[in-house]
Amino acid sequence: MDVAGGEVALTGAAVGAAKIVVSGAGIDERLLAPLHGLGCRVVSIGRKETPTAQALRHELADAVAYLHGGEEVVSEEALELADGLRVIAFLGIGYETFIDVAAARRRDIVVTNTPGRTTDAVAEFTVGQIINASRRIPRHLGTVYPHWSGAEELPDELVSKKIGIVGLGQIGARIAGILRLGFGCRVSYYNRTRREDQEMTLGVRFRQLAELAEWSDVLVVMVGNAETVGLIDRRVLARVRPGSILVNTARASVVDPEALRDALAGGRLAMAVFDGYYQDSSVAKDLLNDFGDRMYVTGHIASHTKQSMERMVRQAVDSVVNLLSGRPDPNVVIRGHI
Amino acid sequence: MDVAGGEVALTGAAVGAAKIVVSGAGIDERLLAPLHGLGCRVVSIGRKETPTAQALRHELADAVAYLHGGEEVVSEEALELADGLRVIAFLGIGYETFIDVAAARRRDIVVTNTPGRTTDAVAEFTVGQIINASRRIPRHLGTVYPHWSGAEELPDELVSKKIGIVGLGQIGARIAGILRLGFGCRVSYYNRTRREDQEMTLGVRFRQLAELAEWSDVLVVMVGNAETVGLIDRRVLARVRPGSILVNTARASVVDPEALRDALAGGRLAMAVFDGYYQDSSVAKDLLNDFGDRMYVTGHIASHTKQSMERMVRQAVDSVVNLLSGRPDPNVVIRGHI
Repeated sequence: MDVAGGEVALTGAAVGAAKIVVSGAGIDERLLAPLHGLGCRVVSIGRKETPTAQALRHELADAVAYLHGGEEVVSEEALELADGLRVIAFLGIGYETFIDVAAARRRDIVVTNTPGRTTDAVAEFTVGQIINASRRIPRHLGTVYPHWSGAEELPDELVSKKIGIVGLGQIGARIAGILRLGFGCRVSYYNRTRREDQEMTLGVRFRQLAELAEWSDVLVVMVGNAETVGLIDRRVLARVRPGSILVNTARASVVDPEALRDALAGGRLAMAVFDGYYQDSSVAKDLLNDFGDRMYVTGHIASHTKQSMERMVRQAVDSVVNLLSGRPDPNVVIRGHI
Repeated sequence: MDVAGGEVALTGAAVGAAKIVVSGAGIDERLLAPLHGLGCRVVSIGRKETPTAQALRHELADAVAYLHGGEEVVSEEALELADGLRVIAFLGIGYETFIDVAAARRRDIVVTNTPGRTTDAVAEFTVGQIINASRRIPRHLGTVYPHWSGAEELPDELVSKKIGIVGLGQIGARIAGILRLGFGCRVSYYNRTRREDQEMTLGVRFRQLAELAEWSDVLVVMVGNAETVGLIDRRVLARVRPGSILVNTARASVVDPEALRDALAGGRLAMAVFDGYYQDSSVAKDLLNDFGDRMYVTGHIASHTKQSMERMVRQAVDSVVNLLSGRPDPNVVIRGHI
C-alpha cells in the first residue's frame, strides 16, 4: 500500500474565505455543513456530468481543499494552477486510479481516503453480480417465456460452486461470510498474509494464488493498490478451469486486459464481471465489442448506496476539517513531501 | 393445497409399446433411460418452441404418459383425443398453472409433481433478484460511468432493509436463512400456520399478512396454490410502505394484477419482480408497457439449474415408472376419480 500511515496535520493554512471544491453527483449537500462552518465557500461541480480537465484546472486554481466524489481524473494538468490546494479528500478507497499521485506529491498536497465505509455496499453488490453471472439473470429480464435451447445451457446452482476470493480484507471477508454462512458455498481465499482468524470464523481455506485460480468456479478479485496492478495475469488465468467466472468489483487494473481477452477468447472464462472499467486501453474496447454478452460491466457503483455514501462523505468532510484546522487526520494516504 | 396426499398406484395399464411424451427444452435425454426400460416409445416435443394446443392434442392422442417439462398449457382441448393417457408427471410444483385440473380429473388422469427439488435454485435466484431490484443493477449494466442524477437516487443497502416473506415453506425458509445468516437483514414472515421451529433457528418473526406488508421494505411472495390466488390484493398492497419492493418468484396469480397496477401507479411500490408472468390479462400487458423500467420479469426460470432440473427429471421419471408399473407413487397431486 502507498499509505503513509500515522496522522498528519496541516498547519498555518490560510483557510478563511477560501474555496472548497466538491465534485460528484451523489453527495447530499446537507452533509457538507461542517465545511461551511470553516468559513469557506463551498462550490459543487460535476453534479450533472464529469468536468473536463480544463474546467477542473480552472475550478481548482483558487481552491484550498477538494472533496473528490466524482469520476474525474486529477491529472498533472488539472493541478497546474492549484497553488493553494492543500488537501484532496478522496471519496472511496482507490485514489490512485483517479489522482496523479506523483503530481500531488510534488505539490505537497495531502490526500486522504475513506476506507472501511463501503463494506456492506460492495459485498452485497458483488454477491448480486456473482448470482447474475452464474444464473445469467440479465439475459432473461423482460422475457415472459424462458429461452433455453437445451439442457447444456442450464446454469449451475451457486451452492454447488467453489468460490475463490483474492484479497481477504474487510470486504473480501464479508463476501466470504455471505457465501459461506448464507448460501453454503465452499470458499477459499488468497491473501498476501494468511488470515487464520478468518479461516476459523468463516470456514474458509487459504490457497496460493495459482492454486486458487485452478480450484475455483468463481474467482472474486477484492484487492487493489499500486502493487496489485496486473496481479491476475496470463499465468494466473492459464490455471483457471474451463467455464469459470471472474468477478472483479475492486479495480479493473488488477486484471491484465490482454490476458483477459485471451482467456475469454479461448473459452476458459465463461463470464467476466467488472465494476469500474479500464480507462485507457484499446484492448478494453475490443473486449466489450468481442465479448459483450459475456461481460457484465458497470461504472464503479458497487459502493454507491445511501448508507455508504453518507458514511464516506462524513469521513471525507472530517478529514478536510481536521487538516484545514491544523488537527491530525487518521486517513491520510499521501502526505506530499512532508 | 389441492394435493390428494398418500400414494396412488395405477393397475392394469397396457404399457408395452405405448408412447410417452416428454416436453421442454432443458431435459437431459440420458435421464429418460428408465422410460425406455418400460418398453415404451419416448417422444420428445417442444425442444425448440412451445407446441400449439393442436400439436399437443395430436401428440397426446396415442400417449400413455406425459412428462410435462415445458411451458405449454394442457387444456381440455389438448386432452380431447388422449383416451389412453394415464399419467401426467409435471416437472415442478405449480401444476395448476399449466394443467386444466378439472379436465384431468374428468379423464381419470393421475397428475404428479416434483416438490422439494428446487429449493436452492429458487432461493438463490430470488435473493439475486432482491439485490437486483434493491440496487438497480440491471440499469447500470453496460455503462462504464455511473449515471446518477443525484443523491436522492442512491439505493439502500440490503443489510438496512426489512424483508417480509409470505410463505415459510422449504424455499421461503431457505431465502430467510440466506438473508438472515448471510446478509444480516431483519426478516419477518407470514405463514398459514406459525413456524416456531424456524423462528428459533433462523431468528425470524411471525406477523399477520397486512402487518407484514406494512413492516417490510421488501415483500417476498413464496406461496402458490389454488387457495392463494389473489392473496396479495388491494387490501394488502394498501398497507405497503412507499418505495418498497415486491418480489414474486412463486406464481404471478398470487398478486392481483389490478391492485399491483394501482400500487405501482401510486408510487407505493418502487419495483415489482416476477418470475413467470400472468398468462391472460390485459392489465398484465399494460403493466409492462407502463412500468417496464420498474418491473423485472423473467420467464419462470428460477428453478432452472442443472442440479434442480436433474433432480426434478429423475423424480418425474420415477413417478411415471412407478405408476405405469402398478406401484404406488408418493408425489400424486391429482388422482382423477379414483
